[in-house]
Amino acid sequence: MIYLTRRERFNAAHRLFNPDWPDEKNYQIYGKCSNPNWHGHNYELFVTIKGNLKEELGFVINIRSLSEIIKKYIINEIDHKNMNLEVKFMNGKVASTENLAVAIWETLLPHINKMGAELHMVKIVETENNSVEYFGD
Amino acid sequence: MIYLTRRERFNAAHRLFNPDWPDEKNYQIYGKCSNPNWHGHNYELFVTIKGNLKEELGFVINIRSLSEIIKKYIINEIDHKNMNLEVKFMNGKVASTENLAVAIWETLLPHINKMGAELHMVKIVETENNSVEYFGD
Amino acid sequence: MIYLTRRERFNAAHRLFNPDWPDEKNYQIYGKCSNPNWHGHNYELFVTIKGNLKEELGFVINIRSLSEIIKKYIINEIDHKNMNLEVKFMNGKVASTENLAVAIWETLLPHINKMGAELHMVKIVETENNSVEYFGD
Amino acid sequence: MIYLTRRERFNAAHRLFNPDWPDEKNYQIYGKCSNPNWHGHNYELFVTIKGNLKEELGFVINIRSLSEIIKKYIINEIDHKNMNLEVKFMNGKVASTENLAVAIWETLLPHINKMGAELHMVKIVETENNSVEYFGD
Amino acid sequence: MIYLTRRERFNAAHRLFNPDWPDEKNYQIYGKCSNPNWHGHNYELFVTIKGNLKEELGFVINIRSLSEIIKKYIINEIDHKNMNLEVKFMNGKVASTENLAVAIWETLLPHINKMGAELHMVKIVETENNSVEYFGD
Amino acid sequence: MIYLTRRERFNAAHRLFNPDWPDEKNYQIYGKCSNPNWHGHNYELFVTIKGNLKEELGFVINIRSLSEIIKKYIINEIDHKNMNLEVKFMNGKVASTENLAVAIWETLLPHINKMGAELHMVKIVETENNSVEYFGD
Repeated sequence: MIYLTRRERFNAAHRLFNPDWPDEKNYQIYGKCSNPNWHGHNYELFVTIKGNLKEELGFVINIRSLSEIIKKYIINEIDHKNMNLEVKFMNGKVASTENLAVAIWETLLPHINKMGAELHMVKIVETENNSVEYFGD
Repeated sequence: MIYLTRRERFNAAHRLFNPDWPDEKNYQIYGKCSNPNWHGHNYELFVTIKGNLKEELGFVINIRSLSEIIKKYIINEIDHKNMNLEVKFMNGKVASTENLAVAIWETLLPHINKMGAELHMVKIVETENNSVEYFGD
Repeated sequence: MIYLTRRERFNAAHRLFNPDWPDEKNYQIYGKCSNPNWHGHNYELFVTIKGNLKEELGFVINIRSLSEIIKKYIINEIDHKNMNLEVKFMNGKVASTENLAVAIWETLLPHINKMGAELHMVKIVETENNSVEYFGD
Repeated sequence: MIYLTRRERFNAAHRLFNPDWPDEKNYQIYGKCSNPNWHGHNYELFVTIKGNLKEELGFVINIRSLSEIIKKYIINEIDHKNMNLEVKFMNGKVASTENLAVAIWETLLPHINKMGAELHMVKIVETENNSVEYFGD
Repeated sequence: MIYLTRRERFNAAHRLFNPDWPDEKNYQIYGKCSNPNWHGHNYELFVTIKGNLKEELGFVINIRSLSEIIKKYIINEIDHKNMNLEVKFMNGKVASTENLAVAIWETLLPHINKMGAELHMVKIVETENNSVEYFGD
Repeated sequence: MIYLTRRERFNAAHRLFNPDWPDEKNYQIYGKCSNPNWHGHNYELFVTIKGNLKEELGFVINIRSLSEIIKKYIINEIDHKNMNLEVKFMNGKVASTENLAVAIWETLLPHINKMGAELHMVKIVETENNSVEYFGD
C-alpha cells in the first residue's frame, strides 16, 4: 500500500457567513472573516490517494492523471472565484476550510475510485498557520 | 549601513479592473483576475529599512517598532478587506500588486523617516511565483 | 470527523542534560547539545484537534479559540525563556523535544477537552531536519 | 509512543523506464519522464521511527544515530548518482519515487530495528507538488 | 521603476565536466558533481524585470506574458532534459549554475526588451543551500 | 560579474543586553529579548560573494570552498554556543543580529579575499519575520 500526494493551488475570495443568522451573530462568531466585502486566500490543496503498487509500472496511479482530475473538477471550478457565490460544490454551505475539505472529498471521490485508487486524505492549507484534513468519515 | 527587514502578512480580496474601461477590455487584459465577484490572496509584505548601526544599542531601529508601524498603517487597513472597495491608500487605483507596493511605500515613508531610518524597499509576494519590489523611484 | 491544525511559534534556550549524571556522561550522550552555556531554537508547534464538523457553523471549534488556548498555556510560558530553568511544565525533565511534546500534550489536553474537541497530535519542529510527533499514547 | 522524524536530502538522476517494454510504450506511459538522456531531482527523504520514550534520556533513539544510519545506507549510495544505473537497492526496478520509497524502507528496516526502534514511515518529496509515503505494508 | 519577479521551475540532469580536461582533473575540481552517469536537480528560476509602472494599467508588463516568454524559451528547452547533451543554449559550456544563469540571461534578453521592459536579474536556486544571481555585466 | 550565495545554519543562545546599562534600561529597550536566562534561535546565514566568471571552469570560486570557509570560521565558533559568552567575534558586543552580521562580515572578509572573490553580502535570518543584511559599508 503506497500513499501518493499531489499538491495543487488556487486563489479565491470568501467570507464566513451563515445567511440564516443576523449580521450581528455572524460578526460575533466569525469576526473579521465575515466582512461582507469579502477577503481571500492562496489555498494549497493536498490530495492523497492510496493503493497497491504495481512494481513493473512503479505506480499506483500516474500522478499526472491525479493532477488532471484535481484540476478538472476542483481547480477549474474554484480558482480566481468567489467561493460563496460561484462554486457549485460549496453552494448553500458556510465557506469554511472545513466545509471546503469535505466538499472537495465528495467531488473527487467517484473520480479517484474510477482510476482504481482509494482517496485517503484531502488537506487544505489556508494560511501558514491554519490547515484542515479530512479522511472521509 | 545596515538593512533590516520585517515581514508582515495580510489576506485580502481584490480584482484587477480599470473602471474607465469596458468589461470586455478589462477581461482581455486581466483575464480571470478581473472576475467581478472577486478573488483573493495571502499577501506577504517585506519592508526593508536602512540606517547606521548604533553599536552600543545593536540596532538601527528596534524591529518591534518597525512591526508596530507596519501593523498600524498597513495591516490594520488592508487585512481581511477588499482592496478595491475598502482600503484608503488604494482608493481610485487599479488593485495590482505593483500599485499596492507603491501605495504602501508612500504610506510608510513619513513614519519610517520619523523613526530616524530610511525606507529602502517594499516587497510584496502575492503568490509563490509572483512578487514585486519597489525602491521609491 | 475533521482534523484542524494550528501552528504557533516560540524561541527558547535549552540544553540536553540529566542532572543525575556526571557531566562526562551528559556530553557523551548529548554531545554539543549539552553545552552548559545553553543554545536555542526557533520552535514550530503544530497542534491538531479532531471532532465532528458542525456544518451550519463550518467548524469543529473556532481556530481562533484554539490559538488563544495554545498561546495562553504554552507560548506565554516558554517563548523567550530557558526551557530548563523557567518553564513549569518542563520542570525536572530532560529538555528534549520528545519530552517537550509530551508535556505540551498533557498541558493542553484538559483545555482542548473543555472546548468540546479531542486533542489528536502535538508536533514540534525543532530544526528543518528534526521533528517529533506525539498522539497521546 | 513517540514519533521521531529525520530529514536528509540527495540529488540524483533518473528516468522512468521499463526495459521490458518498447520505447514507444515507455514514452506513452511516462511521457517526458522517460527521456533516455535522463533528468533529475533534489529529493527530500523523511524517515519516521516510533518507540517508547525513555524519559530520563528524553529520547526513543538519538536522532544523530538515526541520521548516521540514513546517511550510511541511503544517502551515500544514491546522492549525486544515477538511480537507474548505480544504486544497488534500485537494481532491476523502475526508478519511480514509489519503488524508491519501498526500497529505502527495506534497506533501512533491519538497521532501525537493531537500534531498538520501529520504522514507521518513509516519505519522499520529489518536487514541491509530488510526494510519496510508505508505511511498510 | 518597479521590479517584477516571476518564478518558474524545471528538473534537469547534468554533470560538471570540462571535455578539454582529463577525467582525473574533472574529478579533482568537481568531485561527485562530475559523475559520468549524471545527477540532477529541481531548479528554481527567478527572472526579475524592471520598468516604469503604467498606473492606469497597474503593470510594467503583464506577469502572464513574462511567464509565457520564460516557458517558451527556457523551460520548454531544459525541463526534463540533460543540460550537457540536449540544451542548445548550454551547448559547449560547462553545465554549472553560473554558466546557466548567463545563458538564460542572454536567451531571454531580446525577448524581454521586445516587451518594453528591462531584464534586471536572473537567479537560479539549485539547492536550498546554493544559488546564483546574474545582473548582465 | 556573478553573485554566488551559500546558506549555512547554526543554533545559538543569546540575550539582548548592554552591560553598561542597569537591568531596568535593558528590559525597557529589549523587552523579553533581554531575559537573563537566555533564549535562542535557529539562525540561517546567507553569504554572497561576487567575481568574474571563469567560463571554462564554470565558477567564480567553488561553492564547496566557500562552504568550508564559512563552517571553519563561523559555524564551528557559534553553533550550539552562547553568543554572549562563548563567541570570540561577538566579544564585548550587544548580541543583536545587526552586530552579528557586521562581525561575520569582518571575520570572513580576509578569507574570501584570499580566495580571489569579493564579499558582497552577509544576510542573517533570525526568524521567519526578521532578517538583516550587511554589505560592508
